[in-house]
Amino acid sequence: MTHVTAMLQAHPKKDHGIDQEKLAACIAACFECSQTCTACADACLSEPMAGEMATCISTDLDCADICLTTGRILTRLTGENKAVVRAILQACREACRGCAQECESHAEMHEHCRLCAEACRRCEAACEELLSSLG
Amino acid sequence: MTHVTAMLQAHPKKDHGIDQEKLAACIAACFECSQTCTACADACLSEPMAGEMATCISTDLDCADICLTTGRILTRLTGENKAVVRAILQACREACRGCAQECESHAEMHEHCRLCAEACRRCEAACEELLSSLG
Amino acid sequence: MTHVTAMLQAHPKKDHGIDQEKLAACIAACFECSQTCTACADACLSEPMAGEMATCISTDLDCADICLTTGRILTRLTGENKAVVRAILQACREACRGCAQECESHAEMHEHCRLCAEACRRCEAACEELLSSLG
Amino acid sequence: MTHVTAMLQAHPKKDHGIDQEKLAACIAACFECSQTCTACADACLSEPMAGEMATCISTDLDCADICLTTGRILTRLTGENKAVVRAILQACREACRGCAQECESHAEMHEHCRLCAEACRRCEAACEELLSSLG
Repeated sequence: MTHVTAMLQAHPKKDHGIDQEKLAACIAACFECSQTCTACADACLSEPMAGEMATCISTDLDCADICLTTGRILTRLTGENKAVVRAILQACREACRGCAQECESHAEMHEHCRLCAEACRRCEAACEELLSSLG
Repeated sequence: MTHVTAMLQAHPKKDHGIDQEKLAACIAACFECSQTCTACADACLSEPMAGEMATCISTDLDCADICLTTGRILTRLTGENKAVVRAILQACREACRGCAQECESHAEMHEHCRLCAEACRRCEAACEELLSSLG
Repeated sequence: MTHVTAMLQAHPKKDHGIDQEKLAACIAACFECSQTCTACADACLSEPMAGEMATCISTDLDCADICLTTGRILTRLTGENKAVVRAILQACREACRGCAQECESHAEMHEHCRLCAEACRRCEAACEELLSSLG
Repeated sequence: MTHVTAMLQAHPKKDHGIDQEKLAACIAACFECSQTCTACADACLSEPMAGEMATCISTDLDCADICLTTGRILTRLTGENKAVVRAILQACREACRGCAQECESHAEMHEHCRLCAEACRRCEAACEELLSSLG
């Protein structure tokens, strides 16, 4: 998260009225969750019973894409379109919740699903926190 | 749109209860809008007064990312997570509306903004149509 | 492809020394191939023997990501970094070739793989053409 | 990088013959560089003389996209397409080198460019290291 915070500090529009710490935490959580979901989808695909993991893989891929886009949009402070920020945070929270639920149901069997569920819950919470602070 | 429709027809889960035509139209509109917003952001950046186009560029970039993610998620029928589909369509509609408004305000001056506003309005309408049909 | 061409025409840097028609064709092929590969990966995932399609799915996902990035980079004319354009075109050609080969081996069994192989071959050829014209 | 390593450890194909540590370092560097370049592009856009930063912004955006795609492809171990891995690493190294050079030329004036140049150099080095280890 260090580099995320450093870049926010160096931004000409850093006084944008959004809680800087929650913003940095959410950006970091989005990128982490996106990478983890990409890894989990691929790990599921390499399991002997990959066919039974189809829903999990698809859910992972959706979550990976939404988290990435959310992380990028939160990184951009120039446009200041609050309605879009709010809408993408809601979509991200929803995707993370769904993916966490799906992965939790395989967590006892697959360590990658357990780790992925944790990353999704962290990202869901970070989106929630940031959404609340936006008012 | 032909290739989008052909791929939907060839999908094992093509009977997923979503209006096939509206789905194909929305996927195609998302990819087209994403490419157009990417092009508009870059064209704005090459204008002599690029500095004055900062908001437009940032809005274009956000819209390009959201449209892409929306187009990808709509393309995936395996997961069947309706709540995520609905949330990303709402975010996409919001991003397209905001980007269309911004680009429309430069449409008389910049042909790329005029074309981009049109693509955004098409995508906004396609998201709206698909959302309504989801019930 | 119409909207790609229209946006290139409207770009302040349209006289950038790259063959305009080949550029438009390659951008359109990249976006089409990316959508098709995303659809093929998901269709494979919904097949009864999804487990046997693991390599195909993974190859599709890689190709979808590279095509998208290539389509976006080609859309940006402001930076004019020829070395990057060349390198990403080479990566895209390689990914399309590999994905076409993989999908062709399932083309008789799965219509989505047949269609995807075709899209990959078109994109491979478009990258090749553009690369040659860059000198 | 911790979560990247943990996910690699949990992957069924973790014995894929690629140096695990260099792979994890490169994935982490790609995601970090992508986020940093996205932030730098946006910060440049908010500078009073954004118009003069057009090349830097465009270079940042290209680098952000290539790093992301590279990070995702490296995360997928199922496909094992070495030729594609090599090609995307070469493209990423090229993009990072170019972006580092561009940002270094503004490093004295803009802290975000200084930080971004550092992230690009780290990612360039990580790609180089991984490429060498692939043989």
